[in-house]
Amino acid sequence: MNFPTLADIRAAHARIQSFIHRTPILTSTAINQIAGCEIYFKCENFQKVGAFKARGAANAVMKLSPEEREKGVATHSSGNHAAALARAASVAGIPSYIVMPSNAPEIKKKAVKGYGGEIIECEPNLKARETTLEAVVERTGATFIPPYDYMDVIEGQATCALELLEDQPDLDIVMAPVGGGGLLGGTALTAHYLNPEIEVIAGEPAGADDAYRSFHAGHIIPQTGPNTIADGLLTSVGKLNFELIQAYVDDILLATDPQIIEAMRLVYERMKIVIEPSCAVPLAALLANKERFAGKKVGIILSGGNVDLGKLPF
Amino acid sequence: MNFPTLADIRAAHARIQSFIHRTPILTSTAINQIAGCEIYFKCENFQKVGAFKARGAANAVMKLSPEEREKGVATHSSGNHAAALARAASVAGIPSYIVMPSNAPEIKKKAVKGYGGEIIECEPNLKARETTLEAVVERTGATFIPPYDYMDVIEGQATCALELLEDQPDLDIVMAPVGGGGLLGGTALTAHYLNPEIEVIAGEPAGADDAYRSFHAGHIIPQTGPNTIADGLLTSVGKLNFELIQAYVDDILLATDPQIIEAMRLVYERMKIVIEPSCAVPLAALLANKERFAGKKVGIILSGGNVDLGKLPF
Repeated sequence: MNFPTLADIRAAHARIQSFIHRTPILTSTAINQIAGCEIYFKCENFQKVGAFKARGAANAVMKLSPEEREKGVATHSSGNHAAALARAASVAGIPSYIVMPSNAPEIKKKAVKGYGGEIIECEPNLKARETTLEAVVERTGATFIPPYDYMDVIEGQATCALELLEDQPDLDIVMAPVGGGGLLGGTALTAHYLNPEIEVIAGEPAGADDAYRSFHAGHIIPQTGPNTIADGLLTSVGKLNFELIQAYVDDILLATDPQIIEAMRLVYERMKIVIEPSCAVPLAALLANKERFAGKKVGIILSGGNVDLGKLPF
Repeated sequence: MNFPTLADIRAAHARIQSFIHRTPILTSTAINQIAGCEIYFKCENFQKVGAFKARGAANAVMKLSPEEREKGVATHSSGNHAAALARAASVAGIPSYIVMPSNAPEIKKKAVKGYGGEIIECEPNLKARETTLEAVVERTGATFIPPYDYMDVIEGQATCALELLEDQPDLDIVMAPVGGGGLLGGTALTAHYLNPEIEVIAGEPAGADDAYRSFHAGHIIPQTGPNTIADGLLTSVGKLNFELIQAYVDDILLATDPQIIEAMRLVYERMKIVIEPSCAVPLAALLANKERFAGKKVGIILSGGNVDLGKLPF
């Protein structure tokens, strides 16, 4: 595959710049002491729509041809990608069609509607999502923008590490969570271009460890029956994403749910910021493997902050 | 009384600068839309010890004479001032003696101990706190640093509005919560010096409305039986603080507990930051009086982020 070049990623950044926040990098003396290393948190929980997903969706929408724009975009998602795509479409002034399972949380539907997205409900299973999406695309002619296994989306997510490494070029290690691998793939690509010496390490929930198993097997082993609090990371790693992981990711470390919850609590208590469970996975994996990070400068991408406040695990 | 001059407040800022964070100012498009005005949040929840109290405590400790330093500092507090004073003393390398009620939360005691403060427990009532403190001062010769009714503490808290108005000079209104009045008094003083046109408006819980009643009566009416979720604002307004309020505060607006909780939730959901209930009071008061703020540029000091995560009200 022809992956985006550094010039492509820089062009993507320029393309989406006015539609996203350049998110801040925060540090915490207390967490550094606990971790035994220097951590730089890239706060995508402060990003538009509350997650890094705003980047990939904006990039994909802005790259559409005028003809494609006219017919809008479509996807199936019950998570952050749904809101991100609806928002990107709204900013571009084009329609968006979002297939969501009928049992999707009301708050997620509200977010999509708030951005003017049209919701098409379906049965809560993958088969129904796919056939419903096909029918929507057939009917509307909209362009399907998948959540992670899609080059323009990966290129957009890659802009996050671009900002991180512009602001903090002397990192030894960069970490991101891995679900489908959009953020991780983009992060690994950017780190590779800017400084191949930087180690790229993913954090993955032990209860949804398909990327870990695939990484060690050398081929994709799909996720079945995931069971973790990190509800943004339940999906199987994508095809393009796995190619990037094989090429540019140095390691994948696992974290158990109690470790994820403990890391999440640490961020709330010490940094006073709101993150979703998936977002705490890299820090949890770091804290479970401290010796490996001792004395290093580590960039961690905090992926998002969309959490049901009534269901915090503490 | 001779209140600190602008030069005094600037000197205080220089004095404590290396011991505190210059906290960021955040904005939220979503909250601005809901509020109908432009709000600039000064994030003292990101301050050292998680609250603006770090400023006043540091200023008071750094102003001690060499003789006073040797004998250390003392206070009675179960809240943020306890941790702030213990930390300031620790930074200055001097002892601190903190009188705390025996039923103070374990987490508050841990914070004080973490900064090397010596905790002296007493019965959980004001009388016991005062007599225990007297005995400690008698025994150690430490200087008593009260939480708010004390010039050097007010001068320190005044540095927060100094930063806010340096970064955002064109505000129409500045808001702070009022409990004892340390933050509000300092804020009003700074705003008065930098631009007497700026309105200073306090937010106070309806369930602990002594400042509101005192403000309208023209004399201090002590708080009895406070009942509010805003546990940092239960105390009566101080004497020096009330003088400043009478001189430089334009109005005090009340917020009910449901309004406080709603404002708190809004900050968590839309800004992705952790604040304590007391901290949400000015925003709650603003939202309860929108017409008064319509179209204005409003600075709100978010006072702190020390909240028991297991007891969030949503």
